[in-house]
Amino acid sequence: MLIPADHLLMARALRLAEHGLLTTTPNPRVGCVIVNHGEIVGEGWHEKAGEAHAEIRALQAAGAAAHGATAYVTLEPCSHYGRTAPCAEALIAAGIRRVVVAMADPNPLVSGRGLTRLEAAGITTVCGLLEEEARELNVGFVSRMTRGRPWVRLKAAASLDGKTALNDGRSQWITGDAARQDGHRWRARACAILTGIGTVRCDDPQLTVRGIDTPRQPLKIVVDSRLELSPQARLFDGNSVLIVTATGAAERIDRLCGCGAEVLVLPDRSGRVDLAALMLELGRRGINELHVEAGSTLNGALLDSGLVDELLLYLAPCLIGNCARGLFDLPALASLGEKKVLAVREWRQIGEDLRLLARLA
Amino acid sequence: MLIPADHLLMARALRLAEHGLLTTTPNPRVGCVIVNHGEIVGEGWHEKAGEAHAEIRALQAAGAAAHGATAYVTLEPCSHYGRTAPCAEALIAAGIRRVVVAMADPNPLVSGRGLTRLEAAGITTVCGLLEEEARELNVGFVSRMTRGRPWVRLKAAASLDGKTALNDGRSQWITGDAARQDGHRWRARACAILTGIGTVRCDDPQLTVRGIDTPRQPLKIVVDSRLELSPQARLFDGNSVLIVTATGAAERIDRLCGCGAEVLVLPDRSGRVDLAALMLELGRRGINELHVEAGSTLNGALLDSGLVDELLLYLAPCLIGNCARGLFDLPALASLGEKKVLAVREWRQIGEDLRLLARLA
Repeated sequence: MLIPADHLLMARALRLAEHGLLTTTPNPRVGCVIVNHGEIVGEGWHEKAGEAHAEIRALQAAGAAAHGATAYVTLEPCSHYGRTAPCAEALIAAGIRRVVVAMADPNPLVSGRGLTRLEAAGITTVCGLLEEEARELNVGFVSRMTRGRPWVRLKAAASLDGKTALNDGRSQWITGDAARQDGHRWRARACAILTGIGTVRCDDPQLTVRGIDTPRQPLKIVVDSRLELSPQARLFDGNSVLIVTATGAAERIDRLCGCGAEVLVLPDRSGRVDLAALMLELGRRGINELHVEAGSTLNGALLDSGLVDELLLYLAPCLIGNCARGLFDLPALASLGEKKVLAVREWRQIGEDLRLLARLA
Repeated sequence: MLIPADHLLMARALRLAEHGLLTTTPNPRVGCVIVNHGEIVGEGWHEKAGEAHAEIRALQAAGAAAHGATAYVTLEPCSHYGRTAPCAEALIAAGIRRVVVAMADPNPLVSGRGLTRLEAAGITTVCGLLEEEARELNVGFVSRMTRGRPWVRLKAAASLDGKTALNDGRSQWITGDAARQDGHRWRARACAILTGIGTVRCDDPQLTVRGIDTPRQPLKIVVDSRLELSPQARLFDGNSVLIVTATGAAERIDRLCGCGAEVLVLPDRSGRVDLAALMLELGRRGINELHVEAGSTLNGALLDSGLVDELLLYLAPCLIGNCARGLFDLPALASLGEKKVLAVREWRQIGEDLRLLARLA
C-alpha cells in the first residue's frame, strides 16, 4: 500500500539517481532515500561501477536510524554477489521494515529476486511507483537487459528543409551555439558515440564531450566498411576508439591498432558492416546508450534496419535548398503509408533552434 | 497623451477589426470603439469593400452619445471620397472630441491626411497605440501600400526530414487532419492562392477554402509557363482563375479563357513567368495577402527571387528519406553563410504536427 509521501520520496530518489547520469555506465543510475518516522535519515546514489550501490550509501548515511525505516529505491535491490555484496541483504541486516521500489530489475534472469528475498525476510515491499520515470532514466540499461542491445539515440542537426550539409559535406554550422552545447550534454550521458567514415572524412570530428563537466568520455566508434580511416584522424586523440569494418585487411588493421584503436570485423553478406550484429556486440560490451552522429548514409542504414530508437533533431530556422544533403538515405517508398512514423516526446526551443525528441514507433 | 484605458479599448478595437479577417479584401481590416464618459457607446468594424467603414458603423451605433466622445480606430480614418464618404468628416460632424489611432494610413500618398484633417477641426489625436498589432493584422494591405505587392505567405507541409512528396509527386497525406484544417484557415484570409502547373498536374487541387465558414473564396492563380493546364482541372470548378504564362499561344489561351479563366502573359527574358512582375500586377489588382501552395520548383523560384515574406510550415512527425521530394529547389550554395535565414515568430503544435511561422530576414 502506498501513502501520499511515497510519491514525493520516490521522486527525490529519482533526483538522486540522476546524479549518476554521466558516470554509472555500464551500471544503471539508481537513487535511494531512507525515511524513519517521517524524516529522511539517509540518502545515496550510485556513482560508478565497482563503487557502492545507492542503497549501501543511504544505509551508511542512516546508520542506526535505518532500523524500522522505509527505503525508497529507484530500482529493485540486487540479490546477487557481483562486484559488491547484495543490497537486499544489507537492507535486511540494517533492520529496514518497508521497501518501495520504482521498477523491478529489467534483467529477466534476476527480475523479482531481490523483492522476493526482502519479503522472505519479513519486509513489506511495494513495486512500480513512478515506474515510467525510472525506466526513462535507465532507458539504455533497460534496452540492454531486455533486448541485448543499446538504446540508440540518433542526433542530427538540419535546416528547416531537412538539410544537414552542403553537397561537398560542409556542415559547420547550421545550428547555433546553444544547440551544439545541448548536443554535448546528450553525448556526455551516452556510453559510446557512433559515427561513419564519411563524417570523419568530411568533418574530422574529435567525438569528445566538450563544455560539459564530466569525468568520463564515451567510447568512440567508427563504422568504416573498407577500413579507410586515416591514422591522422583527430578522434585518435584521447579516449578509446573502436573501428568496425567489413574487411579483414591485416595491414590496415595493424596500422589502426597501432593508433590505439580496436578493430572489429563484422561483415554482413553484402560486404558492409552488419549493423544489427554490431548492436548486439555493443550490448555485450555493456553499452547502454549509444549516441549516433553520422551522415545520411549511416543514418539511413541504421533507420532502415530498425536500429534507431530515438531521434534527437535540432532544426535551425534557415533554408538551404534541395542541392544540399538530406538527413536519411532510405530506399524509395512505394507509398506514403511506408513513411517512418515517430512519436514526439518533446519539442523545445534551444537558443534560436528547435529541438525535437521523438521515438520510432 | 494616453490614459491606461486607451490600451484596453484599442485592443478591443483590434478584436473587432478581426471580424473582417476573411471579408474586407482589398480593403484593410479596421475596427472602431467609441467611448463617452468611460462607457462604450458604439462599436463597429469594416466588413466588406463598398460597405460602411468601421468608424461609420460605430458612429451609427453611438448616435447622439458620440458627442464629446473618444474614438479608437485601428487605422487612420480616411479623408478622401472613395466608394464611401470620408470617415474623418463623419467623426468631426458627430462631435467626437478625441481620436486614438493605432497606425497611420500606410499609403504614403495619403498617410497623415486624416489625422491632419481631424486636428484642423480641433480634435485631439494620438497615433501609434498598439501599432505593431495593427500592422500585423493588415500585413498584406501594408505590403501592397508600401511595396506595391502582396504579402507572400508560403505554406508547405513536410516530414521532419523536409520531404513534401514521394518522387512521383504523391503527397496525400503527410500531415494530419488538424494541420490541413488549419491550412484552410490561412487560405481563407488570403486574397488569392497561388500554385504551379506541377502541383496541378500531380494533385489536381480544388484550391478552395473548405471546412471554414467563409462567404468569400480567394482568387486562384496558376503559374503555368507553357500553358499546359488542362481545361478539365478541378480548380476550374467555382471561383475565378487567373493563369499566368510565358507563352502567347493564342489557341491555348482561347481554350483556357473558354473555361472562364483569365490568362496573363508575363514572360521574363529566359522564357519563364516573370514572378516579380506578377507580384506587382497582383498588387495593382488589390491582392493583399497571397497564399502560396506549390511544389519545390515554384517555391524555390519565389524564394530565390526574394518574393517570399513568410513561411508557414507544417512538420509531420515522420521520416521519408532522401529519395523523396524536398521543399525548395534553390541554386547550390557556395557556403553555409548563404543559407536563407528566417526569424521565427511562432512554433505551435497542431494536432500531431508542428506549425512554424517564420519570416525571411
